[in-house]
Amino acid sequence: RFELYQLSKAGKLSVPAMNVNDSVTKQKFDNLYCCRESILDGLKRTTDVMFGGKQVVVCGYGEVGKGCCAALKALGAIVYVTEIDPICALQACMDGFRVVKLNEVIRQVDVIITCTGNKNVVTRDQLDRMKNGSIVCNMGHSNTEIDVASLRTPELTWERVRSQVDHVIWPDGKRVILLAEGRLLNLSCSTVPTFVLSITATTQALALIELYNAPEGRYKQDVYLLPKKMDEYVASLHLPTFDAHLTELSDEQAKYLGLNKNGPFKPNYYRYRALISQNGKDA
Amino acid sequence: RFELYQLSKAGKLSVPAMNVNDSVTKQKFDNLYCCRESILDGLKRTTDVMFGGKQVVVCGYGEVGKGCCAALKALGAIVYVTEIDPICALQACMDGFRVVKLNEVIRQVDVIITCTGNKNVVTRDQLDRMKNGSIVCNMGHSNTEIDVASLRTPELTWERVRSQVDHVIWPDGKRVILLAEGRLLNLSCSTVPTFVLSITATTQALALIELYNAPEGRYKQDVYLLPKKMDEYVASLHLPTFDAHLTELSDEQAKYLGLNKNGPFKPNYYRYRALISQNGKDA
Amino acid sequence: RFELYQLSKAGKLSVPAMNVNDSVTKQKFDNLYCCRESILDGLKRTTDVMFGGKQVVVCGYGEVGKGCCAALKALGAIVYVTEIDPICALQACMDGFRVVKLNEVIRQVDVIITCTGNKNVVTRDQLDRMKNGSIVCNMGHSNTEIDVASLRTPELTWERVRSQVDHVIWPDGKRVILLAEGRLLNLSCSTVPTFVLSITATTQALALIELYNAPEGRYKQDVYLLPKKMDEYVASLHLPTFDAHLTELSDEQAKYLGLNKNGPFKPNYYRYRALISQNGKDA
Amino acid sequence: RFELYQLSKAGKLSVPAMNVNDSVTKQKFDNLYCCRESILDGLKRTTDVMFGGKQVVVCGYGEVGKGCCAALKALGAIVYVTEIDPICALQACMDGFRVVKLNEVIRQVDVIITCTGNKNVVTRDQLDRMKNGSIVCNMGHSNTEIDVASLRTPELTWERVRSQVDHVIWPDGKRVILLAEGRLLNLSCSTVPTFVLSITATTQALALIELYNAPEGRYKQDVYLLPKKMDEYVASLHLPTFDAHLTELSDEQAKYLGLNKNGPFKPNYYRYRALISQNGKDA
Repeated sequence: RFELYQLSKAGKLSVPAMNVNDSVTKQKFDNLYCCRESILDGLKRTTDVMFGGKQVVVCGYGEVGKGCCAALKALGAIVYVTEIDPICALQACMDGFRVVKLNEVIRQVDVIITCTGNKNVVTRDQLDRMKNGSIVCNMGHSNTEIDVASLRTPELTWERVRSQVDHVIWPDGKRVILLAEGRLLNLSCSTVPTFVLSITATTQALALIELYNAPEGRYKQDVYLLPKKMDEYVASLHLPTFDAHLTELSDEQAKYLGLNKNGPFKPNYYRYRALISQNGKDA
Repeated sequence: RFELYQLSKAGKLSVPAMNVNDSVTKQKFDNLYCCRESILDGLKRTTDVMFGGKQVVVCGYGEVGKGCCAALKALGAIVYVTEIDPICALQACMDGFRVVKLNEVIRQVDVIITCTGNKNVVTRDQLDRMKNGSIVCNMGHSNTEIDVASLRTPELTWERVRSQVDHVIWPDGKRVILLAEGRLLNLSCSTVPTFVLSITATTQALALIELYNAPEGRYKQDVYLLPKKMDEYVASLHLPTFDAHLTELSDEQAKYLGLNKNGPFKPNYYRYRALISQNGKDA
Repeated sequence: RFELYQLSKAGKLSVPAMNVNDSVTKQKFDNLYCCRESILDGLKRTTDVMFGGKQVVVCGYGEVGKGCCAALKALGAIVYVTEIDPICALQACMDGFRVVKLNEVIRQVDVIITCTGNKNVVTRDQLDRMKNGSIVCNMGHSNTEIDVASLRTPELTWERVRSQVDHVIWPDGKRVILLAEGRLLNLSCSTVPTFVLSITATTQALALIELYNAPEGRYKQDVYLLPKKMDEYVASLHLPTFDAHLTELSDEQAKYLGLNKNGPFKPNYYRYRALISQNGKDA
Repeated sequence: RFELYQLSKAGKLSVPAMNVNDSVTKQKFDNLYCCRESILDGLKRTTDVMFGGKQVVVCGYGEVGKGCCAALKALGAIVYVTEIDPICALQACMDGFRVVKLNEVIRQVDVIITCTGNKNVVTRDQLDRMKNGSIVCNMGHSNTEIDVASLRTPELTWERVRSQVDHVIWPDGKRVILLAEGRLLNLSCSTVPTFVLSITATTQALALIELYNAPEGRYKQDVYLLPKKMDEYVASLHLPTFDAHLTELSDEQAKYLGLNKNGPFKPNYYRYRALISQNGKDA
């Protein structure tokens, strides 16, 4: 997705592309709601850790971080957050998490979870200072968030105790438990509920159908977001699972709100659109 | 704000305008975080109701509705949600609320709270079916969400029991407790924390400064959102209150993410901008 | 109640007494459930403080402390607990609170709430170290938990800013906000829901009826707890308010569990009884 | 434990016995805190179910039921409770759960969890009415809570889809997912954290030491609860894991409270003791 936008910016995109990853429904499910459950599942299956009373630091308070924080707090962990973005940091405050620099809590936490999309968020220097028996894992983009390479040095011993679980052993006997060698915990050590797959597959299928059926000229060689109405359609297809009943607008109400009774239901200025145009005039 | 966009669409806006209401920081504080507290405060000060075990229906699951639902659930109420938008409805499901039509629960709920921005969300017909002693109030846009006018008929008696609290009495003796005559509960019956006012005032002041200082031509006769960076600035000014410590990007990390070390911290396609242009080419 | 047990121990109780305060239903309602709501209400009405992001220390993790902690955490505060009893301390850990000594957090907290039943839990020395603008209040037994007397010295200025709210001003201008002069916040600055009063009044009335109707000799000059069955009766009288439907045991199930179909529903070793007998043979 | 009390009642207990199961620390850990985590773990490992939005009924609101309800609610499930005891039912109300009879929700729930200690809590008749794809499992005492025997009839097909997971298939194709053949989910399909084992083992060891070391005559041929002070000792041994710091009473405070500075910390009438004496004079 990131690469698509870079191609688009460089004028090298040869076909229209649909950024399904940032459709609201997929975003929330793949990231927030799915990770809220898979962080617990991934940690339990690999380490059988008890969550109650554990001190955990979550690096990054985007959708993934929000999901991880909510779940762990709900099960009695004490959760700290690190952030680079002041808006997300303020959200973390309001949601009841202390916002700290990693170094402030590195000696006391039992678990580190990275969800930043950044690299070297946990450095060797910090791993050196972690407690014996602490756990470090990654729920973010790639396997670079934890500087795992820095742990492959002669003075440290690696012991594979179980599939996806390594004990990294310091000369003084301290053990840090590294999960999935720093790759994504939710993909490596947890399962994805079929419900989430259904949301994702539906979104992708609808995007392809839209691109295929769209009249000539609707989409240029650019990156687009799924039209709001289709995003709503994906959601509405999944409501019966929960026996959820939508309220319908009366004619009078639709007119009052300036909306079509069948959606899209957010006023135009909520709509998602191709957010980077090729000609750069946008900002 | 709504009117500004209509003026803009009609080409009648004579100066640039900044939609501060939809800046992220203000949105979250004025709506989500502030309402999470003021719904409790407003209900307590007017009715002394105990929240534990009460059945409540919240109409609308936008930012205000989310705040109300979260607070009431946290204090032991059983909360139902009504929605017209399938995306918001699915979010309500995932957050643990049953999504119903108002008529399904109208006879059993103890409290109705409207947060829709719509009109006639609670009709006379529905008020007729509410339980004796139930409470109805509005946290939404205007005083039209509850059809209060329909209650001003000869067969119903109004009894003012306290400032902002009316008992509307049916011929059979049933009483429905109407708060603030259907006007905004959070403004009428609760106070706004100074912290929220500070966020709002800072945002407005920065918007004015930006419009005043901007070089000729940066803003046309249109409606703009506060530049992301300023939104971040408002947030960062309020972090010390919480003793929150931001993490700073290293040069290497900033380069990896393609960001400036001082923000804005979200990639371009997260940026908020003037979302409706006058010439209509936008969609 | 405490005095009753002391009289009983000294053999000076001249009539049977019923300790209604420790009946399960009353305990939970007067303390846990009621305080969960009144701590929020009391703080809002007096100070309009925003809870989100605030650092709060709750001294004592009994029923009252548990209620205060749960409510404040739910609304986004960061809550610390102090305890003397290791069992309660371990419960606080498992519920997600850091257990600290007051001195560890005294300089950083925005609010101190005492719920211990003890005296001088917050000392002048500690009040001296609190932040400007911090709030101190008491939800516990008596007005001795905060050493208020120590604040009545010439170098400190008291300023009454509102009913039940004093600013105590240090020579350097620092202000600490003292609520209700250290008396019970929930009684002084909040209201008690009628539902809680109903539970309490029902319990007291039933206790009197039981003592009056009891056959000669059932109760001696000692302190008794309300018979479990009556406690259950109080609860069952209040279930219809919540439209709650009890499940009834089948004959076969009652036999399997060794219970009477109409209760009491807990096996004998859950029963509450006079726990201190006069003759001291009890332990 | 139950059997011990029956033996004691019958005067057939030949040695003193310590009921460690009802010591506070063990109770809370084995039941409330452990089950809060193992219900999620057990369901995930066997069925990969997504919790968000699921309708769940929990039969029994004791410690185990409370743990299950809290965890599932926290992850976005909509939870109903069934109870026979009005006190527990009222607690469920105040904690935000609708109290229903199983038949009221049997057709709509996605998951049934039994935690009653009772038998035939879920009958064949009720299993017949469950939805296709719904899950039924047991977290209670024994494998009799779900009437599994009634499902072993010719018209139903059993399909083992995975270890501990059976699909029971009705003639019309409806499948109900039965976990662990109705045996304890937490023992069969989840792991017990070492922390919980440590609490349990410590409690048992201390009980044995106490019985062995006790002076002649302290314990008779009866069932005793672990002395409060030892219960506190178990807890205090586990506090360093959480870096929890106990507050110590000053001499003055200890005197005020009438307590020994080293505990036990609850006034006498909180103490747990042998609750059924052989001679039956107790009530």
